[in-house]
Amino acid sequence: MSTEPGQKNLFEPATETMAAKKETPAKEPKSPPRSAETAESMAKRQREISVSEFFTKNRHLLGFDSPRKALLTAVKEAVDNSLDACEEARILPDIVVTIARIGQSEKQFTMTVEDNGPGIVKAQVPNVFGRLLYGSKFHRLRQSRGQQGIGISAAGMYGQLTTGAPVRVRSKPGKRGQAMAFEIRIDTARNRPDFTEKAIEWEKDHGTEVSIDMEGEYRRGQRSVEEFLKLMAVANPHVQLVFKDPDGNVTEYQRGTKELPKEVEEIKPHPHGVELGILLKMIQESENRTVSAFLQQDFSRVGPSVAKEICATANVNPDSNPRRLETPAVQRLKAAIDATKIMAPPLSCIAPIGEQLIIAGLKKEVEADFYVATSRKPVVYRGHPFAIEVGIAYGKPGDTLHMTDAGKIVEVAAKKPENQEQLMGNADEPVRLIRFANRVPLVFQQSACAITKAVINTNWKNYGLQQPRGALPIGPMVVFVHIASVWVPFTSESKEAIASYDEILEELRLGLMEAGRKLGTHVRKGKKLANEFKTRNYIETYIPHLVVALQDILKLDDGEATKARDNLTTVLEKSRKL
Amino acid sequence: MSTEPGQKNLFEPATETMAAKKETPAKEPKSPPRSAETAESMAKRQREISVSEFFTKNRHLLGFDSPRKALLTAVKEAVDNSLDACEEARILPDIVVTIARIGQSEKQFTMTVEDNGPGIVKAQVPNVFGRLLYGSKFHRLRQSRGQQGIGISAAGMYGQLTTGAPVRVRSKPGKRGQAMAFEIRIDTARNRPDFTEKAIEWEKDHGTEVSIDMEGEYRRGQRSVEEFLKLMAVANPHVQLVFKDPDGNVTEYQRGTKELPKEVEEIKPHPHGVELGILLKMIQESENRTVSAFLQQDFSRVGPSVAKEICATANVNPDSNPRRLETPAVQRLKAAIDATKIMAPPLSCIAPIGEQLIIAGLKKEVEADFYVATSRKPVVYRGHPFAIEVGIAYGKPGDTLHMTDAGKIVEVAAKKPENQEQLMGNADEPVRLIRFANRVPLVFQQSACAITKAVINTNWKNYGLQQPRGALPIGPMVVFVHIASVWVPFTSESKEAIASYDEILEELRLGLMEAGRKLGTHVRKGKKLANEFKTRNYIETYIPHLVVALQDILKLDDGEATKARDNLTTVLEKSRKL
Repeated sequence: MSTEPGQKNLFEPATETMAAKKETPAKEPKSPPRSAETAESMAKRQREISVSEFFTKNRHLLGFDSPRKALLTAVKEAVDNSLDACEEARILPDIVVTIARIGQSEKQFTMTVEDNGPGIVKAQVPNVFGRLLYGSKFHRLRQSRGQQGIGISAAGMYGQLTTGAPVRVRSKPGKRGQAMAFEIRIDTARNRPDFTEKAIEWEKDHGTEVSIDMEGEYRRGQRSVEEFLKLMAVANPHVQLVFKDPDGNVTEYQRGTKELPKEVEEIKPHPHGVELGILLKMIQESENRTVSAFLQQDFSRVGPSVAKEICATANVNPDSNPRRLETPAVQRLKAAIDATKIMAPPLSCIAPIGEQLIIAGLKKEVEADFYVATSRKPVVYRGHPFAIEVGIAYGKPGDTLHMTDAGKIVEVAAKKPENQEQLMGNADEPVRLIRFANRVPLVFQQSACAITKAVINTNWKNYGLQQPRGALPIGPMVVFVHIASVWVPFTSESKEAIASYDEILEELRLGLMEAGRKLGTHVRKGKKLANEFKTRNYIETYIPHLVVALQDILKLDDGEATKARDNLTTVLEKSRKL
Repeated sequence: MSTEPGQKNLFEPATETMAAKKETPAKEPKSPPRSAETAESMAKRQREISVSEFFTKNRHLLGFDSPRKALLTAVKEAVDNSLDACEEARILPDIVVTIARIGQSEKQFTMTVEDNGPGIVKAQVPNVFGRLLYGSKFHRLRQSRGQQGIGISAAGMYGQLTTGAPVRVRSKPGKRGQAMAFEIRIDTARNRPDFTEKAIEWEKDHGTEVSIDMEGEYRRGQRSVEEFLKLMAVANPHVQLVFKDPDGNVTEYQRGTKELPKEVEEIKPHPHGVELGILLKMIQESENRTVSAFLQQDFSRVGPSVAKEICATANVNPDSNPRRLETPAVQRLKAAIDATKIMAPPLSCIAPIGEQLIIAGLKKEVEADFYVATSRKPVVYRGHPFAIEVGIAYGKPGDTLHMTDAGKIVEVAAKKPENQEQLMGNADEPVRLIRFANRVPLVFQQSACAITKAVINTNWKNYGLQQPRGALPIGPMVVFVHIASVWVPFTSESKEAIASYDEILEELRLGLMEAGRKLGTHVRKGKKLANEFKTRNYIETYIPHLVVALQDILKLDDGEATKARDNLTTVLEKSRKL
């Protein structure tokens, strides 16, 4: 029993039993029963956990484990949403990110992200910002930055948790739409929004602005809001981005192209890797009356002949009603699908960056001797298409890679030298790895990421680099890796690292090898040149001395000595294949 | 547009609009609108995401990303539940884990875990096994293995997804209780169980058995079910455990003690680190009528004088009604709490293993020269008490640590040598790190874990070890780290790694330093001894030669030579302080 003086009243069993029976969050038993539990006593405490309660207690799962990360995570979620909305509405994004201190606090900030997107209709605003697991992207197979319906509400929940303040939203859906302002709180026990709304005047044609007060810590340098936005601008050259930091500095990332990324198509699942459970569910929900039609119309890349082949292999009548199939028949169908050669998923569902743009992006950011990029064709994991892209920028051995002035990125105010060093690789240090998923930079949890694992498991010694066991290779190099997918499997809801699905690790391996081989040719050429230089140096250094010695021993005249020197040089160069 | 012949019918806009309006999972628009989206068209797709759907799509978050991991994760979740239930009911656990192939399959297995726990009442079984975010442990501040109400239902969901089969459960709640058998499926769109139940005869007095058919891959060695169970037995010597593997091998981990771990008390939150949002919620839900009573009765470690001090610092009347406090006053209250010295949380809410048992456990597992353990006092993060424990087993430099015969652990059949090497550390290799959270071994995601980060960030060179930059130290050493807490912050729902909260990193640092210092003394003594040995060797090697030379030069007789030798030895030994 506790011996705290102030707690003694709370251990009366009456309170406890009563509380347990009620089963409301507020009335939790305030002290544990100290006798052994039984199935019955334990049953009384069994109850549902609201998803908001779960994530409040586990805010680190959402990227809110430290004040340092909190600001960046919130900015990321808001910017992701803005970019997704702009792209869907085919609007060139204009985004303003502001981080301001609350009062003179070094611990509390207001984060505001304003966009020129299509806006959000009035009825949906409270749900989008005040409810976890709510959104439009989860049930689609289509590449987008957001996918879970958690991010921005989680940022609001963290703000509410640390400052008690509601999320403030302004939104205007189109020129003739009515601009509205909202104050939204999340009722965590119900995972539902509590909100107020009012019509306002807003000078812009359309767009959304979200403001969240939150505990945070503002830093520059690695893994800062600044670095994130810079990398975001690199992978999204169609974005115009202004960042106002708490010290009054304004950084403007200018649009590098007026072309929006290719519009991606929503697709149906690719048959390969679809689990039995999903197949059973799809069959149950299908409107198609024959197995053949089901296969062709509910999946991508299945035509009449492939459907026929699958049915034949599975020993299932293609004209039978799919809903009448017993589980063993569906199991055979699944085995037949996995055994059948089916065309790779269409490229149209994902928007890789492309080799040229990757190299252009790297050139903009890193001054190096050699650039290479590889953009692999899409393949699938669990029926989800994905594509891996790898880029490498490599400097001279012994060199340090310097950041360039970042091309189109103009820093209007407060140019910070430390910022210019962020992407640097050093000859004696591990290479710099920059990771992206659906064009979003991943700045945390590098060591937990499948991308990092794949880079570490690649044998870079084959390509002329040093590499300590179980570590990143050493050298003046930046490795860029991008995964584009209709569903990126992140290791946690904070979307900071990629999960290690075998298919993804394999594609990463192939992509890194492909880029690595090209790098190897360059590095070896460099090494050969260096060796040749050394050899030629030897020849040039020692031949005059040799000639002097020969002249002395053989009593040669100067003409003979010159001839001897020329002959020696020729012979040595030939033997060295110079 | 897709060019697949079989898909052409699906692109009619009528279907799409209709489907979007209905908002049921089965009727998703099967093709994307190819014109630009508006706020209105996007709003039609906004909807709720069921937590089961979310985790089906994200099964890697639950530890089910590969068939290799799936079996181990399922065993872990079932065993965790059994041990928690037994301890709560104060029953010495008797657990049988069976993994059997389905037919001759190398890909499909049935995992069964049977315990002698208190059983589960009939009405709760379907919820416990067929519903995510449902349980008895989430809302309590009390150390337990399970905490989320996700684990075992997630294992069942994975089984259903990969084999289509339901979870099978038998349970008997006490001698006079009626044993029941269940078949449970999860309706993922609703996150609710679909089940059948029937009364059965079951020869045991009480207990629960869960069987799940699932896709998997059975392996031995590192990160295997076997290794997990072995480490589990080490950290839980009160458990009797039998493991039947798919090849018919039976391993029995015998109970090492009949004493159950100390019973832990449920506590109220510690005031330090409680967020403003939580404080506001607690005030709202409190039944106490004065701020002073609220502070004393809804928190642990707050007595009348501490409550008075907090109120004075916050400039809040201790007799005022807490519900009438405005947010600014609550903010002052929070600041005052953080500024006030408050007694550390009671040890009674957590059950650390203790220095003696850690050393005993290490001795049982690892043959080394030197053992040390440190069990730190509990502190808090976010109001949650936790304690860090560190153990080290260190061999001779140049040595390889060998596994002992594992003490009480008797391997009845199929003794496998590779298994005996699992905990080995080698002189030239990184030290072996074994991690535990609330007595559960953590076998995956080592690199993502705060424990690993803390070990890497400790400067082991101070303690006489080699350590490459940014890596684990090198040496014949096993490092054991345990975190015991009323709420362990894992980096994902699969509970494989600890999140990097600053307070936890700091305690890990202190614990590792404490153990490291003791290790350093030992390592340096070893080095000193080695040096002394070397010096003595010099003396013994060279003195005879010196004496011969002296004898020759000074023409000494044999007696004088012996005397000279003895004198020289004494002088040298004195000067060397041997």
